[in-house]
Amino acid sequence: MVDYIGIEDIRRLVDSQGVARFIERLAGEIEADYARWPEFEKSARVASHSDGGVIELMPTSDGRFYSFKYVNGHPKNTAAGLLTVTAFGVLADVESGYPLLLSELTVTTALRTAAMSALAARHLARPGSRTMALIGNGAQSEFQSIAFHRMLGIRELRLFDVDRDASTRLERNLRTLPDLADLRIVRCRSVAQAVRGADVVTTVTADKRNAVILEPSMIEPGMHLNAVGGDCPGKTELHAEILLRNDARVVVEYEPQSRIEGEIQQLAADFPVTEFADVVRGAQPGRRTVAEVTIFDSVGFALEDYSALRFLRKLLGEQRGPRTQIDLLPQLDDPKNLFGGTLGHAPASLRRAA
Amino acid sequence: MVDYIGIEDIRRLVDSQGVARFIERLAGEIEADYARWPEFEKSARVASHSDGGVIELMPTSDGRFYSFKYVNGHPKNTAAGLLTVTAFGVLADVESGYPLLLSELTVTTALRTAAMSALAARHLARPGSRTMALIGNGAQSEFQSIAFHRMLGIRELRLFDVDRDASTRLERNLRTLPDLADLRIVRCRSVAQAVRGADVVTTVTADKRNAVILEPSMIEPGMHLNAVGGDCPGKTELHAEILLRNDARVVVEYEPQSRIEGEIQQLAADFPVTEFADVVRGAQPGRRTVAEVTIFDSVGFALEDYSALRFLRKLLGEQRGPRTQIDLLPQLDDPKNLFGGTLGHAPASLRRAA
Repeated sequence: MVDYIGIEDIRRLVDSQGVARFIERLAGEIEADYARWPEFEKSARVASHSDGGVIELMPTSDGRFYSFKYVNGHPKNTAAGLLTVTAFGVLADVESGYPLLLSELTVTTALRTAAMSALAARHLARPGSRTMALIGNGAQSEFQSIAFHRMLGIRELRLFDVDRDASTRLERNLRTLPDLADLRIVRCRSVAQAVRGADVVTTVTADKRNAVILEPSMIEPGMHLNAVGGDCPGKTELHAEILLRNDARVVVEYEPQSRIEGEIQQLAADFPVTEFADVVRGAQPGRRTVAEVTIFDSVGFALEDYSALRFLRKLLGEQRGPRTQIDLLPQLDDPKNLFGGTLGHAPASLRRAA
Repeated sequence: MVDYIGIEDIRRLVDSQGVARFIERLAGEIEADYARWPEFEKSARVASHSDGGVIELMPTSDGRFYSFKYVNGHPKNTAAGLLTVTAFGVLADVESGYPLLLSELTVTTALRTAAMSALAARHLARPGSRTMALIGNGAQSEFQSIAFHRMLGIRELRLFDVDRDASTRLERNLRTLPDLADLRIVRCRSVAQAVRGADVVTTVTADKRNAVILEPSMIEPGMHLNAVGGDCPGKTELHAEILLRNDARVVVEYEPQSRIEGEIQQLAADFPVTEFADVVRGAQPGRRTVAEVTIFDSVGFALEDYSALRFLRKLLGEQRGPRTQIDLLPQLDDPKNLFGGTLGHAPASLRRAA
């Protein structure tokens, strides 16, 4: 039997921790995995493109566990009442090749993306950052808000979205969370207004083109930019001049993938970037000066899903009560007798999985 | 909700048809898909190798459906009471990117491999073939026997395995099947004895090295060789001279993958082969003469798993009664409200999946 985490299960697992604590613990797991970066088998995603979107597989392995994520991106889905992004994934045992856990990753990807954003900001944002502009108030925005409140100490959130209903929904959802009682929420009329004087600027828009959400004139020395929404070829949010500032420093997850998918797709292939793992491992500094503009050009890397699946498996081990399991694999008394143990008319003793 | 086929479900679906009919119908689906070969996005598998084995992802798409299979190969698993090969897969809708069906593929891969073997033999073996040597009597052997009895009219099966218990188990399992009452089963003391005079020779051994299961001297004009067990780098079953015979013709599934994984990995990269799709589509002939030695150098291609998943989905549509479904995806009234609809304290009406 294979452990299974569906929507009902993930809700229960997150509720058992509280969302903020879940994200913070997950960030710890992600950081621990980035600290052993060289142990991971790394590759860019395997993508299947169509007119309506893309379906991707994101595998990785550290030699003990193997994981992959299936994720789609279909911008037009919203019009049909569907999510633009859904995902699921599997954690498997490298020694036997057996899947151990099959989990939903739609909700979990939002959690891990927020965990990753806040983790990077811990290394890159100015100490004492309290104010964050949140540009793009869609499906990811609650998760980002909760993560930065918990992990970075953000106490003022400045919202902007071209869709005012999105900001309303975000504010309403955040107001239901007792943990966020000390969070000041400010609705802004423009990106510029939201960004002015912010310590951290998070862009997480859904615009699927080379957009300019942030203009060079908006950027102030010392800001940390958490650029989440530019994450596939032809989809960026930052004006290239921001990346090219003399006082700017760009941190990416996995350079070969980010060259294709990140904000830096706008720049020459030799534009210098820092891999996040080097920051975690101390090979490169985090923020160097108070005035430096730090940019986390985030696209999401398979290691983060690996960490999430490993963390979910750990939570299953911690919880009391029965786990949800599915009969995805045959369990045979005699592994050489696949036919007899599954389809054949063998004695029941040979068909334990039945 | 996503349709789910586990071990219990696949048993029920196969039982509803009978194994032989299931395989024959599946072969029809595979043939129909090979007939529209140019419509498929084709790539070699994405493999993650370790000391103990390999984990692979095999994606493909025809622009309407996308499928992938997860499959491992771990030869030492048997000693630990585990299967050497397990698999599962997903069929997804290209337009929305949503997964439609998650299915076990351990049993189904054995069924589709047998269907593919018998389908190829229909195009390549001599008409009127009645005798098959079956070298390697492991997990795949019942499936191959049933497929060739049903689809090619094989009425004499000559068994050989270095493990006598394997042949005993195979014979016992086949004897339980009423459909095979007219099948003569002959136990042989050597490969040579099994092969002598056979119309079809199926090799499906588990030997993970460059083995020589078939020697050049064993091959007779007009034979069809169904070489199933040589299916990864460093794993072959046929002496290279057999492939190089003047009267031999080698048919493969997808040439770029077979050059790496098939029997032809032993030969130069320009050794001429025929892709099976060309035979199905009439661009290349099937068997040309009675004396020709035809060789189906089978490694298994993603299209066959696509066909199997599509066929399973069709069977779900045909069956009466409830389907097994899993809550792998959130169902939201408002697709923009991922947080509120899953983790948040939104009204129950926003959380239909709950």
